[in-house]
Parts: sequence; structure tokens; C-alpha cells
Amino acid sequence: MRTLIKNGTIVTDRNEFIGEVLIEDEKIIAIGQNLNTSADKIIDAKDKLVMPGGVDQHTHFSALCNVGDRDTAGYETTDSAIVGGTTTIIDFAPQDPDTGLLDSIDYRINVRAKNKACVDFSLHAMVTYLMDSIFDEIDEFPERGISNIKIFMAYNGSPLHVDDGSYYRILEKAKKVGATVFVHAENGEILDFLRNECVKKGQLTPKYHYVSRPPFTEAEGVRRAAYLAGKVGTPLYIAHVTCREALDEIVEAKGKGININGETCTHYLTTTKEALENPDFNEAAKYVCSPALRDQEDIDALWEALNSGLLTGISSDHCGIDVAELKQAGREDFTQIPNGSPGAGDRFSMIWTYGVETGKISRQKFVELIATGPAKINGIFPQKGTLEVGSDADIVIFDPAWTGEVHLADNPNGVDYNLYEGRKQIGKVETVLLRGRIAVENGKFVGEYGMGHFIPAKMYAGCYTGI
Amino acid sequence: MRTLIKNGTIVTDRNEFIGEVLIEDEKIIAIGQNLNTSADKIIDAKDKLVMPGGVDQHTHFSALCNVGDRDTAGYETTDSAIVGGTTTIIDFAPQDPDTGLLDSIDYRINVRAKNKACVDFSLHAMVTYLMDSIFDEIDEFPERGISNIKIFMAYNGSPLHVDDGSYYRILEKAKKVGATVFVHAENGEILDFLRNECVKKGQLTPKYHYVSRPPFTEAEGVRRAAYLAGKVGTPLYIAHVTCREALDEIVEAKGKGININGETCTHYLTTTKEALENPDFNEAAKYVCSPALRDQEDIDALWEALNSGLLTGISSDHCGIDVAELKQAGREDFTQIPNGSPGAGDRFSMIWTYGVETGKISRQKFVELIATGPAKINGIFPQKGTLEVGSDADIVIFDPAWTGEVHLADNPNGVDYNLYEGRKQIGKVETVLLRGRIAVENGKFVGEYGMGHFIPAKMYAGCYTGI
Amino acid sequence: MRTLIKNGTIVTDRNEFIGEVLIEDEKIIAIGQNLNTSADKIIDAKDKLVMPGGVDQHTHFSALCNVGDRDTAGYETTDSAIVGGTTTIIDFAPQDPDTGLLDSIDYRINVRAKNKACVDFSLHAMVTYLMDSIFDEIDEFPERGISNIKIFMAYNGSPLHVDDGSYYRILEKAKKVGATVFVHAENGEILDFLRNECVKKGQLTPKYHYVSRPPFTEAEGVRRAAYLAGKVGTPLYIAHVTCREALDEIVEAKGKGININGETCTHYLTTTKEALENPDFNEAAKYVCSPALRDQEDIDALWEALNSGLLTGISSDHCGIDVAELKQAGREDFTQIPNGSPGAGDRFSMIWTYGVETGKISRQKFVELIATGPAKINGIFPQKGTLEVGSDADIVIFDPAWTGEVHLADNPNGVDYNLYEGRKQIGKVETVLLRGRIAVENGKFVGEYGMGHFIPAKMYAGCYTGI
Amino acid sequence: MRTLIKNGTIVTDRNEFIGEVLIEDEKIIAIGQNLNTSADKIIDAKDKLVMPGGVDQHTHFSALCNVGDRDTAGYETTDSAIVGGTTTIIDFAPQDPDTGLLDSIDYRINVRAKNKACVDFSLHAMVTYLMDSIFDEIDEFPERGISNIKIFMAYNGSPLHVDDGSYYRILEKAKKVGATVFVHAENGEILDFLRNECVKKGQLTPKYHYVSRPPFTEAEGVRRAAYLAGKVGTPLYIAHVTCREALDEIVEAKGKGININGETCTHYLTTTKEALENPDFNEAAKYVCSPALRDQEDIDALWEALNSGLLTGISSDHCGIDVAELKQAGREDFTQIPNGSPGAGDRFSMIWTYGVETGKISRQKFVELIATGPAKINGIFPQKGTLEVGSDADIVIFDPAWTGEVHLADNPNGVDYNLYEGRKQIGKVETVLLRGRIAVENGKFVGEYGMGHFIPAKMYAGCYTGI
Repeated sequence: MRTLIKNGTIVTDRNEFIGEVLIEDEKIIAIGQNLNTSADKIIDAKDKLVMPGGVDQHTHFSALCNVGDRDTAGYETTDSAIVGGTTTIIDFAPQDPDTGLLDSIDYRINVRAKNKACVDFSLHAMVTYLMDSIFDEIDEFPERGISNIKIFMAYNGSPLHVDDGSYYRILEKAKKVGATVFVHAENGEILDFLRNECVKKGQLTPKYHYVSRPPFTEAEGVRRAAYLAGKVGTPLYIAHVTCREALDEIVEAKGKGININGETCTHYLTTTKEALENPDFNEAAKYVCSPALRDQEDIDALWEALNSGLLTGISSDHCGIDVAELKQAGREDFTQIPNGSPGAGDRFSMIWTYGVETGKISRQKFVELIATGPAKINGIFPQKGTLEVGSDADIVIFDPAWTGEVHLADNPNGVDYNLYEGRKQIGKVETVLLRGRIAVENGKFVGEYGMGHFIPAKMYAGCYTGI
Repeated sequence: MRTLIKNGTIVTDRNEFIGEVLIEDEKIIAIGQNLNTSADKIIDAKDKLVMPGGVDQHTHFSALCNVGDRDTAGYETTDSAIVGGTTTIIDFAPQDPDTGLLDSIDYRINVRAKNKACVDFSLHAMVTYLMDSIFDEIDEFPERGISNIKIFMAYNGSPLHVDDGSYYRILEKAKKVGATVFVHAENGEILDFLRNECVKKGQLTPKYHYVSRPPFTEAEGVRRAAYLAGKVGTPLYIAHVTCREALDEIVEAKGKGININGETCTHYLTTTKEALENPDFNEAAKYVCSPALRDQEDIDALWEALNSGLLTGISSDHCGIDVAELKQAGREDFTQIPNGSPGAGDRFSMIWTYGVETGKISRQKFVELIATGPAKINGIFPQKGTLEVGSDADIVIFDPAWTGEVHLADNPNGVDYNLYEGRKQIGKVETVLLRGRIAVENGKFVGEYGMGHFIPAKMYAGCYTGI
Repeated sequence: MRTLIKNGTIVTDRNEFIGEVLIEDEKIIAIGQNLNTSADKIIDAKDKLVMPGGVDQHTHFSALCNVGDRDTAGYETTDSAIVGGTTTIIDFAPQDPDTGLLDSIDYRINVRAKNKACVDFSLHAMVTYLMDSIFDEIDEFPERGISNIKIFMAYNGSPLHVDDGSYYRILEKAKKVGATVFVHAENGEILDFLRNECVKKGQLTPKYHYVSRPPFTEAEGVRRAAYLAGKVGTPLYIAHVTCREALDEIVEAKGKGININGETCTHYLTTTKEALENPDFNEAAKYVCSPALRDQEDIDALWEALNSGLLTGISSDHCGIDVAELKQAGREDFTQIPNGSPGAGDRFSMIWTYGVETGKISRQKFVELIATGPAKINGIFPQKGTLEVGSDADIVIFDPAWTGEVHLADNPNGVDYNLYEGRKQIGKVETVLLRGRIAVENGKFVGEYGMGHFIPAKMYAGCYTGI
Repeated sequence: MRTLIKNGTIVTDRNEFIGEVLIEDEKIIAIGQNLNTSADKIIDAKDKLVMPGGVDQHTHFSALCNVGDRDTAGYETTDSAIVGGTTTIIDFAPQDPDTGLLDSIDYRINVRAKNKACVDFSLHAMVTYLMDSIFDEIDEFPERGISNIKIFMAYNGSPLHVDDGSYYRILEKAKKVGATVFVHAENGEILDFLRNECVKKGQLTPKYHYVSRPPFTEAEGVRRAAYLAGKVGTPLYIAHVTCREALDEIVEAKGKGININGETCTHYLTTTKEALENPDFNEAAKYVCSPALRDQEDIDALWEALNSGLLTGISSDHCGIDVAELKQAGREDFTQIPNGSPGAGDRFSMIWTYGVETGKISRQKFVELIATGPAKINGIFPQKGTLEVGSDADIVIFDPAWTGEVHLADNPNGVDYNLYEGRKQIGKVETVLLRGRIAVENGKFVGEYGMGHFIPAKMYAGCYTGI
């Protein structure tokens, strides 16, 4: 089966030209001009952009409910991701209590994602239940296709917290097998202290979420994570960097020769902390995520960091937490609001609109941040994240001329709100191919639930090789 | 006119696969597998590697003799470069006395290179005769296709020396037009002092060349260049980094958020300073270049820096200075030995042999350092330095199975020695295409003198965009 | 009542000369040569050195037993301190459970020290039972004469541990009143992790005390403490610095303009970690203290840091823990060995012997480190720590010609061993005056238990004023 | 001969109390209270402060005229210094052409100062005529009592300029003998460039003096000086630090463990650069000195640096250059204005008025900066700079209640202006003793021209020992 995409402007992270992409079964087999080839299916992409499918390296599908039967906003909602231009996610595989890293990965592959996933997916091992046995599990990462392990420095007192000692041992183990350590960097002790102070003072509205998570608590986390990674010599990748202070620590760590890289997320680039001051609890609670939203000057610093290569990817940190039920837990006390917001379906178009269309980044930088960079960081490049001969035919055909607004109804995400509801949008994902199969047409999911496969990652990924 | 290269292993800076490259006239128009296309000429590359032609961003053809009629080792000797796998050089356009930067560039294009160049070439403006008028000439770089200006911090007292004040003004001007400043970083005052001390003590053999140029003099140059570049905010590119101390300064500068990058050269990666201790003056004098050769630990540090992305290119710093006549000037006093050694024809194979074949770098890193990186840094990517649809069809077909030795006779370079004479070589450039035309066949130049064109560079090149 | 000390060599932190010290009641009223004055008592110090009484800013008298009736090695054992040349201690006032900082201070003054103290004493507030109320107690420090607050970063999970959030708030409070924060800097999480690993592996002998407390865990503590102190702008004083890695962090923090100083202790300057490898448990257990003993190269680094002014004092970290009973708790498991060793009585002579007599430090530096520096840091200078008109007449008359060995019997310290038993000693404290009263004669305590008074400290002490 | 000063408040760098100072011949032999001693002369200092005589470590007496017979503002004008409270200067001994460092020192002692000096003086060797022979002269510093060597990084092209190579060699030599290197740190190349640009543009008024000497040119000088001093390991003392950028470099150098200290000068603490904008050339030209005057925020940063111990002294940088004749050289072109202003006689009272009386520094800090610190740095402590038994009886009796204005007539300085003319002054030097002899009475010089002696300095001075 051959598919030919023709007449479109092919846009990669380092080039663009009008040309053709020829696909045979699941792979791209040629890129060229006037290929003069026959094909079973021809897609005319005239006036459209032909780009690699997005790679979202930070998503939490089924985030809340890895326990029991209920599975809120699980992999069946990855249809929103692919409709939004993302063809691969690197999802997290949190541990259930007393469950190992690898069993949690298997559970994701075999249970959670099975017959549901609409996108291809790799998995980060994720420590959410610290046990002695996890260290040796890292030795098996290479054969299991896991190149990345996520840890939380924050959330002290909960099983999610990874103490500095365990982090240190994880760094040693990760280095041994060529894995990258992916860190949620916040100083949990200070956060707990400041949050408790707010509670004691009766400062309970969502606004105090950001008040109790000042930038220096994130910066200290980055600083400490970097110091220990430097001691061991393991590449470090910082999740969801939000502010200038944290960026400064990354720069400083580089100045010591520490191998450190990081990402930011759509919402940190598009929304300031004032969103948490909305007197309507429901509206404010939507924006409760960690780290907290910041100021415009932080947003400016993040765009600059993306352009200079200091940050190498933009993720969604997608969490399918609804307002109607789950976020209500914190109505009387912001510390009880579950953290996280959906966004896997919006990342591509929001960054295009607020990055490319505003002139903040070039089209090439867009592809790099949305697809190529994350694929490299996570050991799935060049299979994913690029348009090259031999790569998976994960392709977005994008209409740059479209203008409109974001509405949940246009791309339902399994929860009851879209974080960008009503915002202006320029450009629209029209058609998406996943490994050569058409999954989205006219902006609607036409694929099959379960068409997404697990993609084993290669070790010694981008952080090791200088991306 | 269509040419098809088939059956070869296509090796780029980020991929490799068996496939085909289709060329129409001067451009690559398709890359794929089983293109099933007709072509005027078919090249079978079975068991061969198909790589982008090399880009050598640091060469001094006609270096010595921009005055008068004689032109030693001029562009007619670029046949050795292309036989050696380099299809593009970014040569220097030194100023004659009282001659401006742009006139010097025109002179290179219209006189020196004309009817001689066997490779395509861009040009660095190069300050070798400091005059007030040069600052305003920088304003014209964009329209002249000059994205880079080279300055010498060393050589105090000669017209080559650019004082820190002039350097500062150049940084300001360069930033305004999106040019990169390319710096020979050595502390000239210390060098002069130490050299004079040697002379006073009668330490006159070539060995004292390295004795009088210790690593810290290079490191101080890098440090000062970076500090001033950081003050202005102009991207800085450090020429021929040779040692750990200088690398440390680059790392430290990055830790202050300074935009700094650099290259090293073939000889700094393959030869230690002991070469200067040869009691045979002629043998030792061949290795007199600036900065001086260093120790094995510096070589190790350089390879590490290349792998981690700290350095982004490997150049030849080719200088066609013969031993029989020119180097003799320093027979009684090393300070009179003209600095520089030939190497444009050897860079590709030496780095393959001593980098890839020893396992120090991957094939992808090789292409990045030899071709892609330099093309990006100098604003000629993706026209040069890569195999992509739309790029110039500058292609090397390389036989990785070949083993032998380096001999001047096999690739004469217009001077009377090859710096690597008698060294083991693995792999060999077999065929080279320049913009679609076959220039090298069976390792011999079969092209036309003058087939190389001037390639105007784009501003805001790689150093601005994070490479 | 006037006392005249004559014919001695007066040695201060910045001078030495043969002269006389005239005392009236508790104060020095003149220093000179040939004062030709009458006195009630004349002490001939011919061939002796006349120095300020030592100030030991880090002691734990009554350390273990602030609960119940038993008081092991309490203030009645400060007779050993004054026999050893120390006339002032700045002792810690640990909190009992549910007891505030200030009540704990009062308890020390009114109960523990009362009728027992043989030396004058100031007190550090010391957080060993974290409660919300302690923050506001800091506001009262100025009127209570408390200029210093000690916190433990280590000992997570125990009430001693001060989390980073509470530390941050303490920094803010301390800055407001001009107090200094005195930090035991170790990364408690890593220590716990490594200790637990040892236990799990059955590595239970005292040797594993140092194995599980590697230098980087101390360095990370210093680094984090400094970062947060720098954020707030509060002067920081690091307790018992032991190693080069920690020193490097102090230097680096200074390079960011952070106000940071520190001390080391006698044992870290005189004993390496091999002492913990003694197969005789009792012998090894004596050396279990925190941080752990280090290597000779760390000792060398510490002496260098003392000489350059990077560290400003030498303390004993005196803990009266006996071997026969208390240390036995860890016979089967090193983690149960109570940390700490006695040393208040040995500091003066050990540093003289192993510092001055070996040529590592000058006599002036000796006085600075043993007396003047600590007095300044703790806000009791020039009342204490120097020989000046108006200062308290706390004076040591020292015989530099004496040579012998250290024996517990010669200066019993209330516990069953002397850490330096059998070591060579040069020079000996012969006579000591405390506020003009003779407390030690011929090396024996002849004073009165309870003669020592509480000395209120001034705020904005040495760390604020650049020492 | 005995002199007793009684009833005064004795103020030192670390103490103050009402007491008596007893002097025998040239030395202080006792300090105390109620000494009840007889004396040949008794000075009643009731309501007065008794302080150590000032030490001014940066003066240029006879600066301009070390050639020929004329000696402008030579040592006979040090009467103004002692009237102003300074009893010791460390003057510079610039080289005449072809004259060695030591001969220049002898010339100062034996010719320039002879029968003229009204203050004691040490001498800095000062390189103003670079010759090979100077390096070996440094070996003789210890026996000649020279602990300090001053070099100019600026003034390229003149014999004053010390190139980085010579500076490096001086660092090596100085380290060997325990000398300190005292650096005028400015980037001469950039200064020359910017000055030339001003001249070319016709920007010739005194204002362009500061325009052409921006802070970063000073900061770069400090940075480079520190880097090279760090390479060699020689203590570095930075002359006349003027701005925050330079202070930042000192802090950063400390963060690398580099032994670096510095001073500032009276005028940089009291006058902003707007003084150079005076349309009256004569008024503006008075303020032409190097580095140039700066902004109020730099002044604030300097006071902070003095208080924190980052800077350790305040000098006058006294230069006796008159306006009527010498400064006229630059009437048409600011680059021709000789640099420097008088101030040796004003330092004590100006810093008291604008430092102590404004609350910026304490009285103790005042004494430290005016006397004790400079004495330590220059190896003449405790002979000079303090009131201790055995120290030279150099004593200022100061009336803190006096208020008035600065007028040249009240303390003529040998030139035709006082830089602080008409400014408010609080406190006044009333009586001064030099080595026990009364030199100033009622604010008038009553001593003898030539009463000042050369004071040989000790090596391994304050910069070596952490001050």
C-alpha cells in the first residue's frame, strides 16, 4: 500500500520546500519533487503544510485512576491528541502501591492502552511508590525499551516523593544503562511549609496555589537536581520549566559542565498566574497545576530559552482532571485541588498560534520543539519526530490559513473543559497519518481505537549525544 | 540532466539507510528507496557510503601571497580539497594594506578564485589591516552574503592584531546585521613576551613554539573574547580550540548565558606537541601552527567536547606553506617560521580514521562535524552540508573498506608535504559530485578548474539560532 | 583588687611583645610595658605566653540529658574546658519537647549551668523541636542576648530536622533582628538512604559511619544552605566544616556575594577516618561524630582555609558521651552509636601542638581561631576573645616549653576517655584567669563551680560586619 | 621623653573606651585607664577622639616631575597630609626612563623625600618604564622593605603600560618573595579606541573623559588581572575600584578561590560623574582622574563593599596637579588633561563626614579603612595603623564636634585647588603626633619638614594572611 502526499509545503525542523512524501505501508520511503510515482492513494496538500506528527513527551493519560476499575480520561481520550496533531506521546507509567516500575509499564501497555490508544506511545518509568527493588529494575530498561525515568522531588511525605538519596542511586543506575533522568524539580519541604502557612492563615483560594509555590522553590529543585546529576555524571532532563529563576539555574549548571536539558509546557507559555485569581472557583481551579503559572516576564524568558536551544521541547503535561467532580475537592482549600490540566489536543495549534504566528519562533523551531526535539530526547528519533526516509509515516497536514477559536466541542478531550476555551486559533490540523494510516480527516478522528502501538525507546538518547 | 545514486548507504548527521539520491541538474530532488525512476546517469554505490560533501569553514588558500603576482598554494590547489571529500570551503579574505573588507572579498571572488576554484566557497571577512572604515563595511555584509567576520586577538604590533576596542565595535556592528564574530583567541601580549624571552635565552628551535604558547594564553583569549561578546550580546565563534583550559572557558561562558561556540582542527585531534621536538628542523617546522599543538589529555578533552556538542565543527586551518622555502625563514629562530600547515585534503579521511574507526565518534557525529555543523554556523545550510531535497547535490561516495596510508603523491596539495604522510588511513573518498557534476572519480580530480562558485551566506546563521 | 601579670610575652591575634597586663576586678585596665604600678597580686609570666582565654563556640555540655534528672557531663565538667585554656563557651540550648527556644535558654542558664559553670557562657538558640511558635521567639533574641540560632539540616524524621521551609522562615526572622544562622549542613535524605543501605547489607561496624556520610552529602548541605541564605540575605555560619568539597561550596557561594562563613573542629584537623576502622569497637566508636572524619587531603584543605580566612574559628563540638555505657548502644549497628566526642579541654593545646608547632599557622592566627574570631562571630567581642583595655580579664598563661602527652587523668572531662589519649603535646596551659579571678593554677582547677556567668551577646555580630 | 594623652575616647578599628595612651619616645608603651603615671608632657583629650594616624596607601607626591629639577607638589606638601590626619603614606616610586625600580626607590628616599617629608612613608615599586631588568629587581624587595609593586594595565603605547606577559612574570616573581601586586585595572586598548573615537568626532570636553571610560573597561581589567593572578597564585590588590561592575568581578574572582582585595578612593565615594559636565573647563578638569567618576548607584555599591569587607581601604590617590597650568593642557582636548586630583589632606575628614556622620560606616570601620587595613595590606602593621603597645606613636586627636566647610586656605596642599572646596565638614583633626612628636597643633603643622622617615615594609603582608 502506497500513499503519496503531494503539492504540500514540507516543513521540517531544518528545511521547507514544496514536495512530495511517498509512503509504503507504515514508512516514508521517499521525499522529493516530481517523484512521478504511482500510489494507491494520493493526498493533495496544496496550500497546506506537511509536518512530522507531534511528539508530546509529558502526558498523564489515566493519571488519576491507576487503582480500581475506573479509568478517567484514559487512552481512549488520546483521540483528542491525534486530532490535535500529536501522533506520539511519551506517557508516564506511575506505580501502583507495591508494584514495580516494569510491571507498571506492562500494565500500561497491556491494560490501560490496549485497544484504546489512538497514538503511538513510549513510556517513562515513573517512581510513585518508592521501594528498594526499583533500583535493580533499571538494569532491565534497555531490553524493555525504556530510556527515561521520571522522579518527583516534591510531594514530601507522599509515596511520590523521591528523596535525594534514592534519586542519587537512580542517577547511578540510569547512567549505567544509558537512561535519562527526568525530574519534577521543586523543593518539597519549602512548598509544604508555605502551603501549611497559607492554610493556617486561612488563605485557601486558588490564588494561594501560586503564592505558596514561588519561583525560587522550583529553582532550588533544579539546582539540587543538577548538582547531584553532575556528581554522578548522568544526563538530566528538567520537566516543565516555568520561570527565569529556574532557567538561570540550568544555565549555571551548564557552566559547570553538567549535562542538563529541559522542556516547558504550553500553558506556561500562554497563560499568567492571574488566571488563578479568578473569583469563580471553577475557573481558577482549572489552572491549578505544578509548578504554578508565573508572570509575563517568565513567559518571555521561556520563549527566549526555547529559541536559544536552552530548552528543547514543549509538552502538554496533559492531565484529564475534570472540574465538575475532581477539582471540587479543593473548593474550600486550594491544597486539595488535584493538580493538572488537559492539553494534549491543544499543544500543536496553541504553539503555532502563539509562537509561530506571533513571530516568536520560526516554523523550523516549531517542528523542533513539537516533534523532533522530544523524539531525540526520548530515544525514538528518527523513527518519530521527523520526515525522513525510513521514518514512521506519522504526518500532519496543516492548514495555516484557518482562523477561528478554541472550543472543547471541536475536539473533546474526555474532560469537561478546554484550558484554552474561546482563545483565538490560527491554523488547524486537517489530516493526520499514523504509520501511514489516515487517523484524522477534516479535523475529525477517523482512525481506530487501539491503532496506537507501544514504541520501545533506544538508550543513550538525545541528552547523551548533545541532542 | 538527472543522476541517480543507488544502492549506497546514505549517511547523514542524523540517520542512515540504504537508499537512493536523485539529482536533477545541480540539486537533490529526491531521496528514497526504490524510486523506480529513470536517470541520465546512474551511479551504483553498493557497499559505499553516500554522504554530504564536506564543509571546511577554516581555510587559507592563497594565504601568503595576497600581494604581488605570486600566488602560492592558491585556489587551483582546492583540487586536493575536493579529492579529499570537501565540496565547500569558507575561505578567508584577508585585507591587503589600505584595502577594505569588501574589496578584499571581491578580489578573492574575482581574481584569486576565478577560473581556479574546484570547490564552492563562501568567504569570511577578515581583519588584517585595521582601519576606521571597516566598521561601516559590516553594514553591507547582508547584501554581500558575508555572515562572518574573523579577527585576530594575537599578533600585537602587526596590522593583523585587532585591539579590544576595535573588537568591541565589531561586535556591536555584527550584532546589528546578524553576523557572527569568529575569533582567533590568544593573548598576544603574553605570547610576545614569552617568545621574546625565548629569543633572549637562545631557545630558538621549533620546540619553543609550543613552550612560548602555553594553554592559558589561549584560555585567556577565549575568556576575554567571551566577556566582551557577552557585554554586547553578539554570538561568538572560537576558531581552532586546542586545549582543556580553553574548553573550560567556553563552558564557563555558557554558564553566564553567553552565546559561544567553537571548532577545533584535524591536527589538534591527531598530533601532540612532541612533533615539534623533532631534531630535524624540517620535520618539526611542518607542525608550527597557532595555537600550538598540545598534549594527549587535551586531545581527549577535544573529542569529548565534540561528542557533547560543546564544539560544533572540525576544520583544517589549511595553509599552503612549503618547507623547502617558506618554513626555512625560521631555521635559526622559530619565531620566524611562518605558521600553518596544509590539511584541506586530509580532514575528511583523517577524522574518519581517527574518529569514527576508533569509536570516538559515531558516523552521524562525523557528518555533523565535517559538513552539517559548519554549514549551519556559516549560513549556507541547508544548501550545503546535508542531503536533503532542494540542497545542492554535493555528495561524497566513500569506500569504508579501503585501508592504506597517507601519501602526498596520492593527493598533491600544492605544497611539498602532507602533514599526515605515512599515517594509516581507513576509508577513502572515491567519487565526489559538486552541484551534481562529477568532480572526483576513483579518487582523482576529473572536474574543471573554476567549477567552484561563490556561495553567499545568510545572516543570523547557526550561532544565532542555537545551531 | 588589682592583679598585674608581668614579664610575659603578650600574644594577641595581631601582635606580640613582652609586657604587662593590669587587671582591676574583672576587667583589663591597662596593657603596657613597665607600667610601674602597684597591684594586690603580681603574677610573673617570665618565659610564658599571655593570651586571651579561649572561646569555644560549639559545645554540647549536658547534651544528652536535657530530660529527666540525670545530667551526664553537664556544666560541672566545664572545669576541663578552663583547665584546657577555654574561658568562654557558646553552648547550645536544645529544646525539650514542646518547649520553646527561650524557655530552653532560661533552663540552661537557671538550671543546667547554675552553680556549675566554671567558664563564662553564651548560648545559641537551637531548634531541636520544631514548632510554629519558634519563629516569633526570634523577635525576642536581642533583648535576651541571643545572636545566633543553630539548625540541623540532617536528621530527617527526627524532631531535630529543620526542613528547608522552616529554615527559610528562620532566615527571614534572623535577618530582621540581626541574628546569624548557624547550620549543621548535611543532606539528611541522602544520609538516611545510605545508612539504610548499609544496614540492609549488614555493614554495621563503625567504619560504615564514614562510608555512609561521603563528603558530597556535606557539600550539598552547604550549597543549599547558602543558596537559601543568599535568597533572603541573611549571614550564614557553617558548623564543623570537614572537607574540601564543602570548602569549595563556601568559596563558590562567596563568588555569588553570599555572606557565608564557617568553622571547623579540632578532630577534623588532627584525625583521619581510619580511626573508625579500628577493629576494637570501643576504640572506633569514640570517633563517631557528624559529619564523619575525612582524609588527610581534607585536613590539608582545612588548614589552608583557616590560614586564608575562609574559615574563622576552631571549635571542639564537645559532647560528653561515654564509651562504657552510651556508645555501646551501637555495638551491633553503627547507626545507633550516639554521635559526638569530648574535646573542650583539648582544643587549645591540640591546635597549638598540631597547628602552631608544626608551622601550619602563626601564633597570631592561633589566637584568632581559638579566641578572637569566635568572639566576634558570636557578638561577645571585645568583651571576650582579646586582650584590650575594657575587656574581661580572661587570660591564659601558657608555657610553650612544656612537652608531654595527653592523658585523661591530667584533665578529667567527666567522660571515660580523651579523644587524644597518648598523643604528643607541646605547650601547656598553666594559669587561667576568668574575669580577673584565678581559676587554674599549675594546670589544676582552683576556681569555684558556678563562677562562670551567662554573657549576653550583641546582635549584628561578626558575620554582619565582615568579621 | 614620655607623653601621656588622657581623658580622650580611644577609638580603634575594634574598640572604643575612655582611656589613656602613654608614649615613650617614639612608641606607645601603654594603653589603659587611670595609669597614674608621670609624663613629661600631658595632652588632655577630653571630648576628643584619639585614633591611630591615617595610612594613605595610594599617593603620588612629586608625581609629575621625576625628571629635571622642578618638583611640583613634592614631599614638602605632605604637611597637608598630616594636617589632614594622615601620618603615613605609601607613596609610589615611578621609574625615570632607563632607571630601575630600586634606584627609583632610592631616589625617592634620598632625594625627593629628604628633608621634606612631614609624614612617614613606605614606597610601592612602580613600573613606569618597562625593562627586562625589573623582574630580577623584585628578588631584592625583602631586603629593601618593599612589599608591593604597582603596575598599570592601561596607558597602552606609553612606557607606563605593563603588558599581560610582563604582568604575568611580575606575578611569578612577587609570589616568590611574598610581595603583593597592586594593579591599576583598566582595559587600555578599549580606552584608547573609545578616546580616539571621541577625538575623531570632536567630542573634546571633559565630559568625554567619563564617556570614553565606561565601567566595563574597568571591570574587564579587574577580571583579567584576577585571572592571571589566579593562574600564578599571587595575591592581587586592585587600586581605586570605582563601580559595581568592577566589584562584581572581585566577588566572582573570590568565588574561584582567587586571592583578591581592593581599595577605593575618597572622590569615588563622594562625587558623581556629573562633576565633569561643568561648562567651566577649569571646574570640570579638576575631576579628571582615572578611572573616571561614576554614578550614585556605584557610590552606594562601594559603601556596601567597604562595609562587607570586600574592599579594605580608602585612599586619596593624591596627585598635585594644578589647574592654572597643568590641567590647561587639555583645554581643547580632554585626552590631554593630566589625570589626577589632590586629596591626601582631605581623606580623613571627608570620610568621617560622608561615611561616619551619615551612618554609612561605624567609627570602627572608619579606623579600619583609613588606617588599620592599609597598614596591614602594606606590611607595616602593627607598627602603623593601630594603637597598640609597641606601635609607633602616630596619633590623631580629633574633635568630632567641629562643623564647618572645606577651604583650601585652611590646609594648603601645594596646588591651586581643593577638590572638596566649600563642602560641609563635620569633625576636625586637631592634634597629630608622629612617632611621639607633635606635628600638628590646633590644625596647623608645627612639625619639621623632613621629620617623616622611610618605613620598610614586611613581606607576606595582609593579602597573604587574609588581612
